[in-house]
Amino acid sequence: MTVHKLTVPLGAKSYPVIIGSGLTSGEKSETYLPHFKGLRGVVITNETVADLHLDRFLNLFAGTEYEVVPLIVADGEQYKNQETLFSLYQQMFDAGLQRDGFVCAFGGGVIGDLAGFAAATYMRGIDLIQVPTTLLAQVDSAIGGKNGINLPVGKNLIGSFYQPRVVLADVDFLETLPDDEFFSGMGEVLKYALIAGDDFVSFLEMNDQQILAKNPKILAGMLHLCCRIKADFVARDELEQLGVRAILNLGHTLGHALEKTSAYVGLKHGAAVAMGLVFAAHLSVEAGVLSTDDLKRILNLLHLFKMDLSVPAEIQGEKLLEVMARDKKTTAGVLKMVLLRNIGQPYLSGDITPDQILAALKKCQQPLEL
Amino acid sequence: MTVHKLTVPLGAKSYPVIIGSGLTSGEKSETYLPHFKGLRGVVITNETVADLHLDRFLNLFAGTEYEVVPLIVADGEQYKNQETLFSLYQQMFDAGLQRDGFVCAFGGGVIGDLAGFAAATYMRGIDLIQVPTTLLAQVDSAIGGKNGINLPVGKNLIGSFYQPRVVLADVDFLETLPDDEFFSGMGEVLKYALIAGDDFVSFLEMNDQQILAKNPKILAGMLHLCCRIKADFVARDELEQLGVRAILNLGHTLGHALEKTSAYVGLKHGAAVAMGLVFAAHLSVEAGVLSTDDLKRILNLLHLFKMDLSVPAEIQGEKLLEVMARDKKTTAGVLKMVLLRNIGQPYLSGDITPDQILAALKKCQQPLEL
Repeated sequence: MTVHKLTVPLGAKSYPVIIGSGLTSGEKSETYLPHFKGLRGVVITNETVADLHLDRFLNLFAGTEYEVVPLIVADGEQYKNQETLFSLYQQMFDAGLQRDGFVCAFGGGVIGDLAGFAAATYMRGIDLIQVPTTLLAQVDSAIGGKNGINLPVGKNLIGSFYQPRVVLADVDFLETLPDDEFFSGMGEVLKYALIAGDDFVSFLEMNDQQILAKNPKILAGMLHLCCRIKADFVARDELEQLGVRAILNLGHTLGHALEKTSAYVGLKHGAAVAMGLVFAAHLSVEAGVLSTDDLKRILNLLHLFKMDLSVPAEIQGEKLLEVMARDKKTTAGVLKMVLLRNIGQPYLSGDITPDQILAALKKCQQPLEL
Repeated sequence: MTVHKLTVPLGAKSYPVIIGSGLTSGEKSETYLPHFKGLRGVVITNETVADLHLDRFLNLFAGTEYEVVPLIVADGEQYKNQETLFSLYQQMFDAGLQRDGFVCAFGGGVIGDLAGFAAATYMRGIDLIQVPTTLLAQVDSAIGGKNGINLPVGKNLIGSFYQPRVVLADVDFLETLPDDEFFSGMGEVLKYALIAGDDFVSFLEMNDQQILAKNPKILAGMLHLCCRIKADFVARDELEQLGVRAILNLGHTLGHALEKTSAYVGLKHGAAVAMGLVFAAHLSVEAGVLSTDDLKRILNLLHLFKMDLSVPAEIQGEKLLEVMARDKKTTAGVLKMVLLRNIGQPYLSGDITPDQILAALKKCQQPLEL
């Protein structure tokens, strides 16, 4: 099958994103091994990914000049913390990693964040290679340079912007991905489609069955569509200072708040983002900018991917408002949210009232009508 | 007196360095307060600097809209570590610091490194203002964006490059600076003079008494000369990837190795750098590139500032070589050192033999002859 390749254009920091099937099985390794500059590196991964894929991945380096040491951390967001980070630093030092070495982040978003931050800060920054193994990481977190760890008081409070040298997205990893992880990624994919507009939405509407059946060729095409959008936004606003990259937060202000307030319900990220998209759509109608036809098409799209979810009734509006105000995306006390004028026309709105938010939330807490 | 002002030219990341006397007493605050963009910030300092200067500094913000919270850490290199860093993060969070807030690093190199890294990594980077209070920090570490913390296994192993928004160098702080700290800074000043050439060396030869008497006007002029050089090197090689900024390591490869191997002697940084400069000069003669006339002028310059120091006889050459090879400036196993062709003509040499190093070291361990 075709290997898709695109560039994240950031001047001297530009890098390729390589998408395909069989990439990390040794096929087409000539397309990416030249991006591994140093000969000594570490592969940071978690126990789950290590069990499934590490042997195959390390095989890439067998018989080459590369000396690669695997560093395996426990699996889970709760390990994206100070202790794991400093344990990694020590292991990187013990592995003899120098300034000309590299860190390969081999896993999902947690590994990408943790290994990305470790690479950004070890000896003031060494080469980073992202090999995302989840759909969410492949379409989102592996591109753009955001990394970080959690503090006990909040997620991603510590981190930096640090671009990788190359991103390798092999769709074969998605075969072993648990369903809830797959739908987490699909939440992001649907977000990109709503940002991009009719072409992407139509692609999803037409290929829903192939996507759910994980057809590698269709998945690779879908990834390519997503990564192009992400790369474009990153190039226009690398450090999220211009409000441009903030558009990618469509559905996330509520999504994050839901995750924070509903930890006890065990809400998954994908479900939270899906709810956030429904909420953003309702709020856009509430604000008088989105048509009810577009709202219906959005709800239908979510339905095709089994993501037309109501916000649990026990979530309290006032509590959510409070958490959203505390979100780190808040600047100077103004709550900013991404709304849709049409499908394909997102914008950052700065004049949303608490009443509009509560009204939109109410609609999301009723059974969704298509 | 005159306020000196220069720019570190780094495109969108350019920033001013403002040098003078009375700067942080409220005089001329219009020259720098506009660089404090957010209205909420923290001032990170240590107990010693806090006792001497914090009240006066915080006074700057009295009666303004700024809300500034002081965060005071213990004084000493041994606190530039994981524990202090994460305690600072928590205090920054508790102080309500958001993305649009700022961190002011108010102290010497340790505070600059620690607060710089905290600012670089809190919420993926917030504004940093450097207010260096030691000579070493004013001429060197506050400019250029290098920051970091120590691991138990090595100094500055964790850190990043993160430029401040403005550097305020007030020479008044040097009045209360202990002698050993002052000479630490003078080691760097002499290094700059050897890099810059005859004009700067002559300035020092002519003003030695005024400098040792801490005449503010002469000190400010000296700072200006140093900062211009540092700014120029930083602009040409921000991330130390081109070997250009490496020139600023003149005298430091041995200096660092001496500090590492002689912790038991209690060798101060200034003394280590001074020894490193003598060593670099001898090694340059050994390598056949520096004249003995220039060597004599260098030794005489160090003598004027009471820094013509022999390397302690108990330091073993073999041990030093080992430590130097482990230095993080080592790339691909080659030991690189900065030598002098003439005063004012430093270059990065890649073909120094261990024998030349041992021979030069021997000369530095004898009483220095002028």
